[in-house]
Amino acid sequence: MALSKAKLKYIHSLELKKIRKAEGTFLAEGPKLVGDLLGRFPCTFLAATAEWLQTHQHATADEVACISTDELTRASLLRTPKQVLAVFRQPQEEKGCEDAPARSLCLALDDVQDPGNLGTIVRLADWFGIEHLFCSHGTADVYSPKAIQATMGGIARVRVHYVDLPAFVRKIKDKGCPVYGTFLDGKPLYEVPLAQRGLIVMGNEGKGIGAETEALVTDKLHIPSYPPLRETSESLNVAIATAVVCAEFRRRALGQ
Amino acid sequence: MALSKAKLKYIHSLELKKIRKAEGTFLAEGPKLVGDLLGRFPCTFLAATAEWLQTHQHATADEVACISTDELTRASLLRTPKQVLAVFRQPQEEKGCEDAPARSLCLALDDVQDPGNLGTIVRLADWFGIEHLFCSHGTADVYSPKAIQATMGGIARVRVHYVDLPAFVRKIKDKGCPVYGTFLDGKPLYEVPLAQRGLIVMGNEGKGIGAETEALVTDKLHIPSYPPLRETSESLNVAIATAVVCAEFRRRALGQ
Repeated sequence: MALSKAKLKYIHSLELKKIRKAEGTFLAEGPKLVGDLLGRFPCTFLAATAEWLQTHQHATADEVACISTDELTRASLLRTPKQVLAVFRQPQEEKGCEDAPARSLCLALDDVQDPGNLGTIVRLADWFGIEHLFCSHGTADVYSPKAIQATMGGIARVRVHYVDLPAFVRKIKDKGCPVYGTFLDGKPLYEVPLAQRGLIVMGNEGKGIGAETEALVTDKLHIPSYPPLRETSESLNVAIATAVVCAEFRRRALGQ
Repeated sequence: MALSKAKLKYIHSLELKKIRKAEGTFLAEGPKLVGDLLGRFPCTFLAATAEWLQTHQHATADEVACISTDELTRASLLRTPKQVLAVFRQPQEEKGCEDAPARSLCLALDDVQDPGNLGTIVRLADWFGIEHLFCSHGTADVYSPKAIQATMGGIARVRVHYVDLPAFVRKIKDKGCPVYGTFLDGKPLYEVPLAQRGLIVMGNEGKGIGAETEALVTDKLHIPSYPPLRETSESLNVAIATAVVCAEFRRRALGQ
């Protein structure tokens, strides 16, 4: 079965946020990622090689196309297409999630721009058992193909919410939850008591955390460079900094 | 002064590894990165806006061009070009660096494919005071524009060497240096004694560390996911895993 021109155009149009938003869908590619998502989100369209379909006969979608490798290459947005691509429905925003930081450790992103960074943060949140990620409206769209691919399936387990970030952080703070953030003039990460609940806020790649949100941070953290006190104008990539901070929270939880 | 067609073509050709290798040069863009590199590598060509040149009159290059923002946009490989771009000479391979792991903590990469991951690893190595990065010949080229931009200036301080990795690791091990690596079946990172010298080996994005090098690893590490013992088929991005491991080594050095 060949893919129609209209179908190819539709798949490629999912690179655009306005189309994804209007359709309420997103694209995912590759056996690992599609496999992770199939149980989690309704699948509206799935195109795969005969080989993949034979070994995944339980896979259900509104529409399934068996396509050749050549056709997969034409449809794919990846440099090296892999066996299967699928279109999924974006989840509806659930109610009640705004209370999550009172019970568990959550992440918040203030205008993170790069979809690769965003997807990588979803992936590491999954690894470190962080279920909720609250993003400012200026943060990249997690349903962009680049972000989705970078989550490596983490999007199946981590719930991503877009919120008015300063207003959201204010509510969290008013409930008495700790609000952590990283700053060049923060206290060394290893010297700060860390709770296993509350919010860790990470900032934009260039500008860091916005002033309005910064004023709400209760615990300013700094990841020590090495050797200590070395003069440096450098910083860490936002996904890297998020990982080091999350790993340290969970190291404490493990009592090590 | 307008850029000649030949010059534009030359700048764009530096996206290709074979040209970079033949010319022994690489491209860097943006005031922060170019500023960091100007003292460190000889600059063969620099093109900047009048504004940048006025505030950087000490900047020296074999050839300097004052260009308009429009011309910068034509020359640039970036989506949002920034004031200045420059071509630098790649450093010559220095002798004696192969002994570095006997004295200090070093990193090694086994076929890391993504230039963004590689550049991000150089940046974090800089942050954590790791001066030498040994790459297998199958690792991405650190002088590709994407990798250079991702180093955010770290390439001015971290020395990157391309080596026959298994042979190199064998020599390090034979000298009695520890060789660390991350594996899904490794010992929890926080339970392993860590030296402030030796080699941390990180593997390819999909395949991890190759069998030949794996056999030479003296200390297999695992970054605990959370909650512990959670069943997961997941993994961490290679740059993320490198950061978590390096941060833990340096936390120990800080005595915390």
